[in-house]
Amino acid sequence: MYMLSFDQVLQIIESEIDRLKFNRHPQSLYIPVHYILSLGGKRIRPALLLMACNLYNDELEKAIKPAIGMEIFHNFTLLHDDLMDMSEKRRNQLTVHKKWNENTAILSGDTMLILAYQFVCETSPCLLKQILDLFTQTALEICEGQQYDMEFETRQDVSEEEYIEMIRLKTAVLLACCLKSGALIGGASQEEANRLYEFGIHLGLAFQLQDDLLDTFGDPLTFGKNIGGDIVCNKKTFLLIQTLKHASCEQKEIIRHLQSHSNPTEKISAIKSIYEDVGVREITICRIHDYYCRAIEELSKLNLPAERLQTLNETVDLLLRRKS
Amino acid sequence: MYMLSFDQVLQIIESEIDRLKFNRHPQSLYIPVHYILSLGGKRIRPALLLMACNLYNDELEKAIKPAIGMEIFHNFTLLHDDLMDMSEKRRNQLTVHKKWNENTAILSGDTMLILAYQFVCETSPCLLKQILDLFTQTALEICEGQQYDMEFETRQDVSEEEYIEMIRLKTAVLLACCLKSGALIGGASQEEANRLYEFGIHLGLAFQLQDDLLDTFGDPLTFGKNIGGDIVCNKKTFLLIQTLKHASCEQKEIIRHLQSHSNPTEKISAIKSIYEDVGVREITICRIHDYYCRAIEELSKLNLPAERLQTLNETVDLLLRRKS
Repeated sequence: MYMLSFDQVLQIIESEIDRLKFNRHPQSLYIPVHYILSLGGKRIRPALLLMACNLYNDELEKAIKPAIGMEIFHNFTLLHDDLMDMSEKRRNQLTVHKKWNENTAILSGDTMLILAYQFVCETSPCLLKQILDLFTQTALEICEGQQYDMEFETRQDVSEEEYIEMIRLKTAVLLACCLKSGALIGGASQEEANRLYEFGIHLGLAFQLQDDLLDTFGDPLTFGKNIGGDIVCNKKTFLLIQTLKHASCEQKEIIRHLQSHSNPTEKISAIKSIYEDVGVREITICRIHDYYCRAIEELSKLNLPAERLQTLNETVDLLLRRKS
Repeated sequence: MYMLSFDQVLQIIESEIDRLKFNRHPQSLYIPVHYILSLGGKRIRPALLLMACNLYNDELEKAIKPAIGMEIFHNFTLLHDDLMDMSEKRRNQLTVHKKWNENTAILSGDTMLILAYQFVCETSPCLLKQILDLFTQTALEICEGQQYDMEFETRQDVSEEEYIEMIRLKTAVLLACCLKSGALIGGASQEEANRLYEFGIHLGLAFQLQDDLLDTFGDPLTFGKNIGGDIVCNKKTFLLIQTLKHASCEQKEIIRHLQSHSNPTEKISAIKSIYEDVGVREITICRIHDYYCRAIEELSKLNLPAERLQTLNETVDLLLRRKS
């Protein structure tokens, strides 16, 4: 059997996205769709879908449209999330509501959700119902995760469990959905497909904690966004929740004070220094490693020869060692 | 064969909507969904779906979930359109973004679009792909119609053809989609289902022109909304487009002047009086009658006994004689 490398998979995806042409009118509705899809990104979701398919099948043709559908869906969530968060930049470019306006962001976003369904549904009739139900369930969970995320902004008592559940919904289920869909399209059994779903959940949790870590401790040169963004807007990240759990009363008091006062630079450096004192960097790295191990364990239970899993294993390493 | 009356069909729909329970979390995401669905409305779309099914089948069970899906979809469009238009009221109640906030309107709206797909897809496996493709195509067209509608706001040269195409997309295709889906679920042939689609297009065009007419010439006591709303915000309706086509240079000048100046009450009465002078009320009634006749003509081509069409014929009469 012939297996593709991660780079080859990415190449397929990028060339498909480049070739996307929404020949519908008015073009003003579709130009923002092309715009956000052309901003790049890691393309992890479609890559995972293709790789999961490739575990069971050399023929990836049937997986390509659903893979692109998942990427369109992911970009729809970014478009509407950016509007809800009033973010001005996405991948160093203007967000859609800033480049155009809020109504364009709402309506072109809605259009992307419909286009996502259109692409995801381009699959074999015998799998259609199952993939559709999985996608719909996943899409609802992602909205629920976003709702929790917004509600956490005004709460001071978000628990670790609540936070993990929120990122499971907001981030992990889509990776899991991509892996399961790809496996099913490739011809995997239900049991194998469900294993890949579980693998995706743990990978997704590790992936999001890695994001939290990079936002505070990443290298400004390679990270792409400003370091400390989460601290500046008092985001309830894994780092903050763990710190509040392990900090002394005095440290907690300082954090509370810093959150409502002080300038951004001061705030970042002071809170970061408490994070270091409490050892939250190590706690987070340790937790990422835990999720990573559980993900790898699911992979190892698959009924596949080890060499077949090489690309997926390499991708996991790549994702969790990433600096941006 | 046993056929349901329009009232019986409505009763089924209302009781299904009353029984809808989204037992998911966080409830804060689903309360606005229940809210907008509970505001009422004519329920024309699900009613048309059930009636089209009932033309071919006494068993409506399989049509109910897709019918509710169409109503959820329609309410999703109202929710996001109200946000884009900054409307404060819908059916005499606060709109979702006013009762809660804009982010709730965006995210609960997105959730409704996903729920709509979930319900529409609860159909026989052998029809799933066709109904899904029709629904997706329709949903894209509705977004396109809304985009045209917004773009017409800043244009002075909207032609009659452009306006009719806009309302075909924004209003007519969903009625047509409901009729075709219902017919297919009931067991109609492709040819019969397509006839019902064409019937729906003409019915939808008549229905929207009736709306335009009522907005200006309706009875304030029965209409529900304020009379003259379209005139106040310079909306490019069929009435305005026809008036600009038939008015004298002097009348056009007066309209242009009134559009940028004058208070609402003055504006409504002055523009309404030009509408009357130009005879645009009669032109519109005449056009509604044209579309109505073409709709009825499609119905008559169906391979069904006349008594089978009674409920649908009555519904058309009801819709086009409505005062609100």
